[in-house]
Amino acid sequence: METFLKAAKEASAQLLRLTSGQKRQLLEEMATSLRHHKEAILQANREDMAYAKEANLSSALRDRLYLNEERIEGMAKAIEEIAALKDPVGRVLDGWEIENGMRIEKVSIPIGVIGIIYESRPNVTSDAAALCFKSSNVVILKGGKEAKNSNEAIAMALQEVLINHGLPKEIISLLPDYSREGVDRLIRMDRYVDLIIPRGGEALIRHVSQHATVPIVKHDKGLCHTYIDRDADLNKAVSIAINAKIQRPGVCNAMETLLVDRAIAKEILPKLHEAFLAHGTDLRGCASTQELIDVAPAGEEDFHTEYLDNILSIKVVDGVEGAIDHIRTYGSGHSEAIVTENYTTAERFLNEVDAACVYLNASTRFTDGGVFGFGAEVGISTNKLHARGPMGINDLTTYKYRIYGNGQIRE
Amino acid sequence: METFLKAAKEASAQLLRLTSGQKRQLLEEMATSLRHHKEAILQANREDMAYAKEANLSSALRDRLYLNEERIEGMAKAIEEIAALKDPVGRVLDGWEIENGMRIEKVSIPIGVIGIIYESRPNVTSDAAALCFKSSNVVILKGGKEAKNSNEAIAMALQEVLINHGLPKEIISLLPDYSREGVDRLIRMDRYVDLIIPRGGEALIRHVSQHATVPIVKHDKGLCHTYIDRDADLNKAVSIAINAKIQRPGVCNAMETLLVDRAIAKEILPKLHEAFLAHGTDLRGCASTQELIDVAPAGEEDFHTEYLDNILSIKVVDGVEGAIDHIRTYGSGHSEAIVTENYTTAERFLNEVDAACVYLNASTRFTDGGVFGFGAEVGISTNKLHARGPMGINDLTTYKYRIYGNGQIRE
Repeated sequence: METFLKAAKEASAQLLRLTSGQKRQLLEEMATSLRHHKEAILQANREDMAYAKEANLSSALRDRLYLNEERIEGMAKAIEEIAALKDPVGRVLDGWEIENGMRIEKVSIPIGVIGIIYESRPNVTSDAAALCFKSSNVVILKGGKEAKNSNEAIAMALQEVLINHGLPKEIISLLPDYSREGVDRLIRMDRYVDLIIPRGGEALIRHVSQHATVPIVKHDKGLCHTYIDRDADLNKAVSIAINAKIQRPGVCNAMETLLVDRAIAKEILPKLHEAFLAHGTDLRGCASTQELIDVAPAGEEDFHTEYLDNILSIKVVDGVEGAIDHIRTYGSGHSEAIVTENYTTAERFLNEVDAACVYLNASTRFTDGGVFGFGAEVGISTNKLHARGPMGINDLTTYKYRIYGNGQIRE
Repeated sequence: METFLKAAKEASAQLLRLTSGQKRQLLEEMATSLRHHKEAILQANREDMAYAKEANLSSALRDRLYLNEERIEGMAKAIEEIAALKDPVGRVLDGWEIENGMRIEKVSIPIGVIGIIYESRPNVTSDAAALCFKSSNVVILKGGKEAKNSNEAIAMALQEVLINHGLPKEIISLLPDYSREGVDRLIRMDRYVDLIIPRGGEALIRHVSQHATVPIVKHDKGLCHTYIDRDADLNKAVSIAINAKIQRPGVCNAMETLLVDRAIAKEILPKLHEAFLAHGTDLRGCASTQELIDVAPAGEEDFHTEYLDNILSIKVVDGVEGAIDHIRTYGSGHSEAIVTENYTTAERFLNEVDAACVYLNASTRFTDGGVFGFGAEVGISTNKLHARGPMGINDLTTYKYRIYGNGQIRE
C-alpha cells in the first residue's frame, strides 16, 4: 500500500502542471471514454448485480448499484458539467503589500491527495474522480465491495485518458486493498494522504472519525428542526413544515422534529395535524402535543433519531429560547429553520443556533450545493472546520501565501 | 472531566450574546486585573521556580518559566492590544441571492470550545485566553506541569473579571486533570471540544495527532529551505541566505538547508562560505559542496533535521527542478524561498513547491502573523486545512450560512 500511496503523492506534482484548458479537455475525453467503454462497464455491473442477488442484498441497495445505458450517459454528462466549471485552483483570495514593500498573495491550491470512502452507487466513482481532477487533486477511491467490478471498469475508462496523455494513472486510483484493514491503513497514512471524505452510514463515519490521523471532512447525519414561533405567519409555517418533511423524507436536509411555540400551539397544532395526515405522515408528539392533537407519544429517543422517512416528532417549547435549547441538545449542526415575522426573535435564532445553515422563513430542504449555486456538489459537510454545509468544488482547495520580494531581509 | 467540559460547552452559548464592545471592555478589565494580582502571580511563579530548580530543569526552560513585574506588564499590554483588534466574529464573508429570492449570507462565527496544549511559558496562558475570548471562543488551557501555579494565578485573575460580570468562569478554563491521561481524554472529547491546538515539541504534537478525534491545528516543525538559482542576483542571495539562517536560528521560520544551483555553485559557494564563517555558522555540505568549500559532510539525516541552531546544511542541486524535488522530499511545508531574477523559474518554484509560504527574493524569516499584518498571532499552522501558515485571530472563527426567505419551499 505504501508504494501505491507514494506513487499517488508523486502523481499530484504532475497534476499541478496542467493548465485549466488541459484539465477541461481531459475531462471531456473522460466523458467520451465512459461512453466508449459502455459495454465493458455494463458487463462488469452485471457481475456485481449477480453477486448482489446471491448475497441477498436489499432491493434498495441493488437499485443503487444497478447501471444501464441511461445511467452511464448521466455519468458522462455529469463529467461534462464538471469540466465546464470555473477552475477552483489559482484564485487570488486576498492580497496586500506590507510596509517593507513585499507583496503577499493568498492563492487557492489543490489539497493534494484525497481519499473518498463511499458505498454502493458506482456513479460516485466518476463524479468524485471528475471533481478531484478538476481541482487538481489526486483521488483514491474506495467504493463498496459490492460495486467492485463496476468501479474498476469505470476507473479504467477514466485512466485510459490519463495514460493516452502520458499522465500517471494514479491520478485517479482505486484503493488496491478493498478490505476493512485496507481502509484502516489508508486513514492513518497522513504522510501521503491530505484529506479523507467518508460518505455513507453512521457506523462507517464513526469508525473513520475514531481512527483516522488524516484530516477528515464528514458527511454525517442531518437531524434538522423547524421552529414555528408565536409571531409566525401561520400559512407560511404550515407550508414550510410540510415541505421540510415530505418533499423528500429520505435525505439529510429533511426535517425530523417540529418545534412549536407554546403560545400558539393550540391554534396551529390542529392545522398541522390535518396537513400532515393528508400526506400520510406518522406523527409523534410530546405530552403537551398529545393534549392538543391525537398522535403517538414521542420520547427522548425520537428526538435523537434521524428517521429519513415520513415520520415526524413534534415538541411544544417555550418560545425561541426553548427552541434554541432543544436544538442545542438534539441538533446535528446541519440545517435549522425558524418561522417568524419578528425581527428580534429571528436574529436571536439565526445568531445562537449553531448549524451549517440557519433559515428564516424557508424550508431546510434548500441545503444543497446546486441550490446554493456551487455547481456540482462534493457533499454536505457536517464538519465545523475547513468546509461547512454544502461543499462545492472550491472546498476541494486549500491555500498558500506567495510572497514577492526584492531582497528583503528581517531586521 | 465530562461535567467540566459540559459546563465549558454551555458557557460558549453565553459568549455569543456579548457585543464587540462588551468583549473589548472585559479584556481591558482583564489586563487591569492581571496588574492588580501581580503579587499573587509572582508568588505562584516563585513556587514554580523553586520546583523547577529542585527538578533540575534546564536554564533555558527556567528562563521561559520565570516571571517578573516587567513580564506581567508585557502580558497585560498584550491583552490590551488584543482588545483593540477588530472583532473577527460577524464578518460577512460572502453573500448572494438565488433564483427563488432567498438571500444567502456566509458569516464568520466562533469555533466554539478550543483546547490549547502548550509548555512552560506562562504568558501563553493570558495570550491564548485573550485571543479566544476576543473571538468568542471558550478556551480550555493545558499548560506545562512546571508552570501550574503560575497558570492558575493568571487564570484566576482573568476569571475574576468574568465572575464580576456574572459570566461563567468556564469561559477561560484550565484543564482540571493536568496528567497525560487528562490530555488523552481531552483530545477525544469531540462531543464537547471543537478544536485542539497543540503547541510544543515534536513528541507532544505527534502524540496528539495520533490519538485525537477532535480536529487539530498543528504548530509543527519548520524545515525551511532557500534555493539560490543560476539567475539569482548574488548579492541579494548572500544577504537573504545569511538573514534566513542567523537572524534568529532558534525559530521555525529560520532556514535549515541551503540549496545551490550547480550552475553557479563554483562562483557563489566561496562567498557564502566566507559570509557564514563570519557569523560563526557550523556548515555541513553534500559531496559536491565539499569539493568547492571546506565544510563537514552533510548526510541524509542532516537534510531531515530542524537544527533550531546556528548550523546549516548545504546541497548543490540541478537547477530549480532539483530544488523542487529536494524540498518535496525533505520540506515540512512551512516556508520556502527562491532567489532568482528569472520570471519563468520563479513562477515554477512558487507554483510547484507545496508550503504555507513560498518566497521570491526574500528571507523565510518573514513568516509571522505580526509581519503579515494579522495583529496578535495564534501561531504558525503546519496544517494544510482550516488555517495554513501564520494564524491570526480570524483563523479562530469558522462560518455559517444564514438564509433569509419569505416562505420559500422546495419544488
